[in-house]
Amino acid sequence: MIIDCHGHYTTAPAAHDVWRNAQMAAFKAGGDPDPAYPAISDDEIRDTIERNQLRLLRDRGADMTIFSPRASTMAHHVGNEDVSQAWTRRCNDLIKRVVDLFPETFVGVCQLPQSPGVPISHSVAELERCVTGLGFIGCNLNPDPSGGHWSGPPLTDRAWYPFFEKLVELDVPAMVHVSGSCNVNFHATGAHYINADTTAFMQFLEGDLFRDFPTLRFIIPHGGGAVPYHWGRYRGLADMLKRPPLAEHVMRNVFFDTCVYHQPGIDLLFRVIDVDNILFGSEMVGAVRGIDPETGFPFDDTKRYIDALPIPDADKRKGRGSKPGHT
Amino acid sequence: MIIDCHGHYTTAPAAHDVWRNAQMAAFKAGGDPDPAYPAISDDEIRDTIERNQLRLLRDRGADMTIFSPRASTMAHHVGNEDVSQAWTRRCNDLIKRVVDLFPETFVGVCQLPQSPGVPISHSVAELERCVTGLGFIGCNLNPDPSGGHWSGPPLTDRAWYPFFEKLVELDVPAMVHVSGSCNVNFHATGAHYINADTTAFMQFLEGDLFRDFPTLRFIIPHGGGAVPYHWGRYRGLADMLKRPPLAEHVMRNVFFDTCVYHQPGIDLLFRVIDVDNILFGSEMVGAVRGIDPETGFPFDDTKRYIDALPIPDADKRKGRGSKPGHT
Repeated sequence: MIIDCHGHYTTAPAAHDVWRNAQMAAFKAGGDPDPAYPAISDDEIRDTIERNQLRLLRDRGADMTIFSPRASTMAHHVGNEDVSQAWTRRCNDLIKRVVDLFPETFVGVCQLPQSPGVPISHSVAELERCVTGLGFIGCNLNPDPSGGHWSGPPLTDRAWYPFFEKLVELDVPAMVHVSGSCNVNFHATGAHYINADTTAFMQFLEGDLFRDFPTLRFIIPHGGGAVPYHWGRYRGLADMLKRPPLAEHVMRNVFFDTCVYHQPGIDLLFRVIDVDNILFGSEMVGAVRGIDPETGFPFDDTKRYIDALPIPDADKRKGRGSKPGHT
Repeated sequence: MIIDCHGHYTTAPAAHDVWRNAQMAAFKAGGDPDPAYPAISDDEIRDTIERNQLRLLRDRGADMTIFSPRASTMAHHVGNEDVSQAWTRRCNDLIKRVVDLFPETFVGVCQLPQSPGVPISHSVAELERCVTGLGFIGCNLNPDPSGGHWSGPPLTDRAWYPFFEKLVELDVPAMVHVSGSCNVNFHATGAHYINADTTAFMQFLEGDLFRDFPTLRFIIPHGGGAVPYHWGRYRGLADMLKRPPLAEHVMRNVFFDTCVYHQPGIDLLFRVIDVDNILFGSEMVGAVRGIDPETGFPFDDTKRYIDALPIPDADKRKGRGSKPGHT
């Protein structure tokens, strides 16, 4: 069983985005941030999935996708908390419909109703609704709801603890995943995503979060940002900062996905990171669409890179099939 | 001739830092931001260099270091423009003394008197003084003088053009190098440095800077941040954003150093990046001090990793000896 741990509903029906625009217009006009949601038929949803994620999943030979709302449009920095709460519920409910239509293939992960300056405890109810009510197996946690201004505290700050307590209680992991950037310095998928991955890892290295939450689990996507490439730097910094070795200090709780879009990057990832800390992922249909002219295959067909690794098949199955969720 | 393109004077005499503290105290008290500078003898400077950078350079078998003030203490976000101007002159003058004491071994690169919100044109005079007056061969340009808040424009914005015009006129490169972080989210050497490298590359990818300045050259340090590890992502994003291929759009003007502190990272760097775009560097004595328990050698002894590469000696000499400065 090959499970893609990182898929987003980037192909949602147009009516869903029309509603988002109506919501924003209502917010700006001082109106209801949760206007009436349009009727979207099962056939419409089926169509957007069958033509995209499901087709590609089958073409590429994987079996299942852990599926969450589009990350770049979570946009926690847009509007206010009420806007974020309403938008988040709509997005998660739509994921639930996909999961119900394709229960063999998709498993849900939720977006959170974060908002800059709003306590993370306000996201606990939606997490609980999605996990216990909708059967989702995790969430995408935005370490920077300000969208590239990084105005909140680091993930190791006690301000986050009420949410981590709930993650532990529900026994579900979080993927650390920022959304779009409203800072002109950071291109979303080319800088902000990768920087956030690197930043989160270094926060975990500096802090003592997993002493307080030994069973808390995070997935750092996009191959762990810059971390595996600079693994020597991080091992050295852990030593300089008098932290325990990374294997015990961070890597019992942190997993990297395989959203690295070329063979040399995947080779490096598997060379330096223990296979038990690597989860198969493609971010498909996602950040980088198109065919790599050097290979003739899609950049985000990450299964090909893993198939080409000179490692035992048993390790490849670990890399593709295991996941830290409770399924 | 093996030239280390990335060395900082992290071991400056204590009196230099005492002056900095006095300057900050004077600034806070509303006094002169350029108090009298202490007498520092040639022997003191010789001693700090001979016991550190020069010893290590010889131990490791390199010949020369392109040498600049300590990066983390440039601290452009501290004080105001007058503070930054005075501190910068003191730092650059100290580098000049090192170069004069060890002219066979050290070549100067200057810090700039940047300050958040201050036009970059105010840094032109110091660049010119250092290059034409002191014989320096480049500068460290901070893409985020706010120290982790990223409150200024991207490097491709026309606001930077007056400075780029001077770099082109003087025919010297800039290393893109942030300083310390005053944003609690970003550890300086573990997150802010690497994020800035990744961010700068993506800015160049998005923009058209090198159409306007075809001879402008940047070094992106720390092995190019996350970029080589995610080279497929960047090639794919260039394609999605309708930019020319990276080889012509960015890599005629951008060079990565070898400050990557383990063999797998260096192997990846040389596998994906053309050797003509790689400059030998160690960041020594720098960000990561200490011995790698896996190898028994210092993390930042990057020459060992390059010596171990399975590539022709002629390519290694390129990687270690060439540099984009005009020497």
